[in-house]
Amino acid sequence: MRRAGIDVGGTKFLGVIVDESGSVISEVRRPTPNGAPALIDALVAVAGDLGPWDSLGIGMPGLITRDGIVRSSPHLTGVHDLDVRRELAGALGREVSVDNDATCAALAEWQVGAGRGVEDLVVVTLGTGIGGGIVAGGHLWRGTNGFAGEFGHMVIDPEGLECPCGRRGCWERYAAGSGLAQLGRDLVAEGRGARILDLAGGSAAAIRGEHVQQATREGDSDALEAVDRFGRWVALGLVNLANSLDPAMFVLGGGIAATPELYVGSITRWFSALLYAPDRRPHPTLTFAQLGEYAGAIGAALLPAHT
Amino acid sequence: MRRAGIDVGGTKFLGVIVDESGSVISEVRRPTPNGAPALIDALVAVAGDLGPWDSLGIGMPGLITRDGIVRSSPHLTGVHDLDVRRELAGALGREVSVDNDATCAALAEWQVGAGRGVEDLVVVTLGTGIGGGIVAGGHLWRGTNGFAGEFGHMVIDPEGLECPCGRRGCWERYAAGSGLAQLGRDLVAEGRGARILDLAGGSAAAIRGEHVQQATREGDSDALEAVDRFGRWVALGLVNLANSLDPAMFVLGGGIAATPELYVGSITRWFSALLYAPDRRPHPTLTFAQLGEYAGAIGAALLPAHT
Repeated sequence: MRRAGIDVGGTKFLGVIVDESGSVISEVRRPTPNGAPALIDALVAVAGDLGPWDSLGIGMPGLITRDGIVRSSPHLTGVHDLDVRRELAGALGREVSVDNDATCAALAEWQVGAGRGVEDLVVVTLGTGIGGGIVAGGHLWRGTNGFAGEFGHMVIDPEGLECPCGRRGCWERYAAGSGLAQLGRDLVAEGRGARILDLAGGSAAAIRGEHVQQATREGDSDALEAVDRFGRWVALGLVNLANSLDPAMFVLGGGIAATPELYVGSITRWFSALLYAPDRRPHPTLTFAQLGEYAGAIGAALLPAHT
Repeated sequence: MRRAGIDVGGTKFLGVIVDESGSVISEVRRPTPNGAPALIDALVAVAGDLGPWDSLGIGMPGLITRDGIVRSSPHLTGVHDLDVRRELAGALGREVSVDNDATCAALAEWQVGAGRGVEDLVVVTLGTGIGGGIVAGGHLWRGTNGFAGEFGHMVIDPEGLECPCGRRGCWERYAAGSGLAQLGRDLVAEGRGARILDLAGGSAAAIRGEHVQQATREGDSDALEAVDRFGRWVALGLVNLANSLDPAMFVLGGGIAATPELYVGSITRWFSALLYAPDRRPHPTLTFAQLGEYAGAIGAALLPAHT
């Protein structure tokens, strides 16, 4: 059985074939085109380039209905209210499954990654934004429309930073990939973080997460504080999900999964400090994603067996 | 079939017998005693006073494990790590089911109340604190330990008001039953809310939710603003749950369910303003609980069929 999956990102498509065990046995990459017709054409092309397959699933960013319609997708130019499932099935003459990319990544981490065998699981991907997926009682939970897992727009500070979504204080303004860079710039604005500023070539505006990470690896105490503040923001959202959902495990994906040793201490410490009744309960396992950039495509390949 | 249910509150027990349709056919009330041994004795007494029954379920406040052990219960003096299920089954010589009281209330509203027939549902009870329950894909979701639904300790303002739980900015500090009174006192502190203050006998410290409600019914504009601010705090937490879980419906219980007409406008308006991508999706139905103070006891009676 050759299962094909395609992860549609803002800049590229990643298509894979996975075998019975969920291992990637071939892959295809292609730039993401602009506009709906070109997007469908490119999906057909990648589906062809992957060679023969028995089933096909697609992961897309944005609000994807349970019928495989892209309602909106901030990272795909000119794509909204696009019935990807119907159009692609029509072009290929075969059934396909379509779901949100973070839902796919959660499915993959649950089935063949860090969350194997766990019945109650929340996967949180801290990337450009924050997305994720929920496994409840051994089933992937999509929500009534298919929009569950939009954790990034949980409001955690109603008078806080503006979010491009139009609200204030969304979690992803603090704990997504850009959050660490912002905290580094905040430190510099406080007259600290000299080593971070140095690594960014002396320009506060040029500070990126990598500069804070590098200074942290060197043992710089200001950088360690930025990481600690970042860990608090990450933990705050996780605690809200833990109090509401009581999962056995969180799997954290995105950039931080590449260097978990930098983050695990502060996230775990803040999680324990912020969780409700922390001394009266087992704490969920906090772990990191194992499938890296392949999570979405592998999960897309597993979709047809889980819809 | 006579199903018995007992709702253990901080001040009283409410025991009921429900028939096949979930209607209450008899009830027993009794003050809540202090301490674990007296609590078990009182449960045995109420179970006897209810007359013959075929099954028995118990709803308890606090963190209740899936095995029916009360880990902690802030509203029950001297009760922690109490294995209610085992002790009560031993005393009665029959099996019993035990779960969290808000989980029971959610079960009741779902089965025989405002949420009948809805597959993806969140029940939120805005009482002394905020609790609730989740129905996902037609199943009650308890979480891995049984602690799901502790929505009240979702942190929505990390530098905000202190909570007795030890953290800051928990949702229940703003949107529980006491929240409206606090917003009334805040208005008076701003030199406004003359009618509210008048109804409270001239003492800001004496302002209760009922005073704000009464002034609102009289059309007082300051009281209307307090209700609007309250609606915003309620909506903020609901939006966080909607973005994460995408339910088809919210059922709001607690004191506000007695006068929904006072609140539904502001909660709905703020919900629409704060929801992620509000124009790209159907909004969940916001409705109010129908079972009033009986929800917990009816749900307890339904527990044995749902465990």
